[in-house]
Amino acid sequence: MSRKLIVQKFGGSSVANVERIQRVAERVVSYKKKKRDLVVVVSALGDTTDELIELANKINSEPSEREMDMLLSTGEQISVALLAMAIHKLGFEAISFTGSQVGIITDTSHTRARIIKINADKIKEALKQDKIVIVAGFQGVTLNQDITTLGRGGSDLTAVALAKELKADECEIYTDVKGIYTTDPRIEPKAKKIKALTYDERLEMASLGAQVMQARSIEVAKKFGVPIHVRSSFTRETGTMIIKEVKNMEEVVVSAVTLNKGESKITICNVPDRPGVAAKIFNGLAIKGVSVDMIVQNVSHLRQTDISFTVSKVGAAKTFKTTKKIAKSLGTGEILEDDNIARVSIVGVGMKSHPGVAAKMFEVLADNKINIEMISTSDISISCIIQKKFAEIAVKALHEKFGLAK
Amino acid sequence: MSRKLIVQKFGGSSVANVERIQRVAERVVSYKKKKRDLVVVVSALGDTTDELIELANKINSEPSEREMDMLLSTGEQISVALLAMAIHKLGFEAISFTGSQVGIITDTSHTRARIIKINADKIKEALKQDKIVIVAGFQGVTLNQDITTLGRGGSDLTAVALAKELKADECEIYTDVKGIYTTDPRIEPKAKKIKALTYDERLEMASLGAQVMQARSIEVAKKFGVPIHVRSSFTRETGTMIIKEVKNMEEVVVSAVTLNKGESKITICNVPDRPGVAAKIFNGLAIKGVSVDMIVQNVSHLRQTDISFTVSKVGAAKTFKTTKKIAKSLGTGEILEDDNIARVSIVGVGMKSHPGVAAKMFEVLADNKINIEMISTSDISISCIIQKKFAEIAVKALHEKFGLAK
Repeated sequence: MSRKLIVQKFGGSSVANVERIQRVAERVVSYKKKKRDLVVVVSALGDTTDELIELANKINSEPSEREMDMLLSTGEQISVALLAMAIHKLGFEAISFTGSQVGIITDTSHTRARIIKINADKIKEALKQDKIVIVAGFQGVTLNQDITTLGRGGSDLTAVALAKELKADECEIYTDVKGIYTTDPRIEPKAKKIKALTYDERLEMASLGAQVMQARSIEVAKKFGVPIHVRSSFTRETGTMIIKEVKNMEEVVVSAVTLNKGESKITICNVPDRPGVAAKIFNGLAIKGVSVDMIVQNVSHLRQTDISFTVSKVGAAKTFKTTKKIAKSLGTGEILEDDNIARVSIVGVGMKSHPGVAAKMFEVLADNKINIEMISTSDISISCIIQKKFAEIAVKALHEKFGLAK
Repeated sequence: MSRKLIVQKFGGSSVANVERIQRVAERVVSYKKKKRDLVVVVSALGDTTDELIELANKINSEPSEREMDMLLSTGEQISVALLAMAIHKLGFEAISFTGSQVGIITDTSHTRARIIKINADKIKEALKQDKIVIVAGFQGVTLNQDITTLGRGGSDLTAVALAKELKADECEIYTDVKGIYTTDPRIEPKAKKIKALTYDERLEMASLGAQVMQARSIEVAKKFGVPIHVRSSFTRETGTMIIKEVKNMEEVVVSAVTLNKGESKITICNVPDRPGVAAKIFNGLAIKGVSVDMIVQNVSHLRQTDISFTVSKVGAAKTFKTTKKIAKSLGTGEILEDDNIARVSIVGVGMKSHPGVAAKMFEVLADNKINIEMISTSDISISCIIQKKFAEIAVKALHEKFGLAK
């Protein structure tokens, strides 16, 4: 195909009601008029998915995952049919497909299935007939023809995977914000929309608590080099590109400041400092399904050390209990929990080649009389755990000092 | 399979809300406890289908039929998943399937598809594993994997077709009435539930305006000899069997009295009595999609005759217009319309071997001073068109005189 092919994904809020579906149809058609080949991925209408989950829970508090997928996949099926009708109404040809029809083959892990392969023949055939192709996001099918869903954010994954399979020129992710910002504009009104970000930067931001597109989709996009354009479904302006390499931007050291107030800190004091102890602790937590985020262990004194880690507040009470049990069996000291913490992070590919970024960050926090409780760094990010009450001050100060408001 | 296999169909009102779904689950499980193999066909929850149609019409007043099927088929998919969850909750194994998954292959006539074949391997496999099989009614799939629906009453058809394919011992149709009655109990409180009816009697009753199961499903059941049991989903009592032959009941002349107030009568006066005129009239109507019910033409006088026919009140105004046009082109006389009519009918296989049934019917009407405007007879039914205001009197009198209240 020599024509430009774009995969567009519209989330639930973009198709929440009849008027919005019509607006999406108009938008899609405006691109079609520019002679683009279009594959449109749609999520379930507004809160449909949550409503279906609620209905299921009324019937069975532990519903079978297979039946849950059977139930939830209807949400996107409704969306694609309605969007096709809305596009027809505008006089354009469109055809809708379920994940099953379009050959999105997954493994059998219901409610969180992984895509194994995509048989895109039906889509290619429809594109050849100059039809706008509409695909139900979030869903797939096993080789045994059971319907599966891909987990939260699954529609993004559908879009990225289709863009890869069809060698699309771009994958547009439509959302209710205008793009990705240098920090949360609700905290810092001076926050600027970022023009372009690398996959890695975005991945760091995602794992650091910034919303819009989940890590899994970005990972797939990175793996296959799918260019992503995050933009608003309510305006026409360009959003944020997520790509492999951002050119002419080497001087940008820090791309964004992120904040995550959704974690608790747990500290195990006086851990015996001998090989294998840390492994025992975190294996024990992993077995219980606890996903640990940041881990910090300091040098030891008197053959003992303290280990701190952060976990999502959701289920933190259970995690605390589990940790106590494990710690007891290892003969450690006290276990402390603190849920009044926040994690502020700076992210930027540029910091790889600019020394002194971490020092500058610590200085900014010190200048604002903010104590740092934990530090963790990666290649392209630095995170500090601070007391929650200082979170907004820290974000604003860092945003200012790293020149993001310019 | 040596165990008894029953196909059960539950309509939308039987699964209208969480409590009712739970009740259906309990009922299904009670049969499973009796060591039955069960295949349960379910319609969409309550008014879901109508709500989806309304939603579609808001977006496009002439929605594509393919997309309509895509949309509507979600209704049953929700039902089957929820019913499976409700059965799991009671500690029994159940698995749900869409029409597509279960291999209900149809032609490509969207919104009114016909079943071509059923590949029941998946059902048989699940039954072998002792699971309760739950199938989405009303839907199928083309060989090209497009989702289709079978038209109004399609879930009954799904149930009957599965019962045939699986050689089920019985096909139970659960509804909100206790069975089929000798006449409408709202008109004649003395109406009795009929124990058994033949397919042909039921077919006559269906075409004569009695509700519960549409003609198409009965025709398929008749063709393949599938025994049907129409019964209430709210009580445990036996309903009405619809079977090939009702034994020991030869003395029953009339099985039921039916009433249809949903038709209009159109009369074309002074139609030239030459070959081909009737054909021209009714071909002309057929081209316009008008479905004509009763047709009566009397002997002619002076090479002219009157032709009367009845049509559904829905669209009767349009039909009247069309008729006028056709009549004008044929040079007939006046066109009369009367929508104050009713059709009362008596139905019974027994009348084949009992002479004088028609005479008795006319006598009953005459005794009640009811004028007969049109008469039409078939092998097992006699229908009279009368003025609507006499409808209830006629039904009661016929019900009494033919001994149905006994």
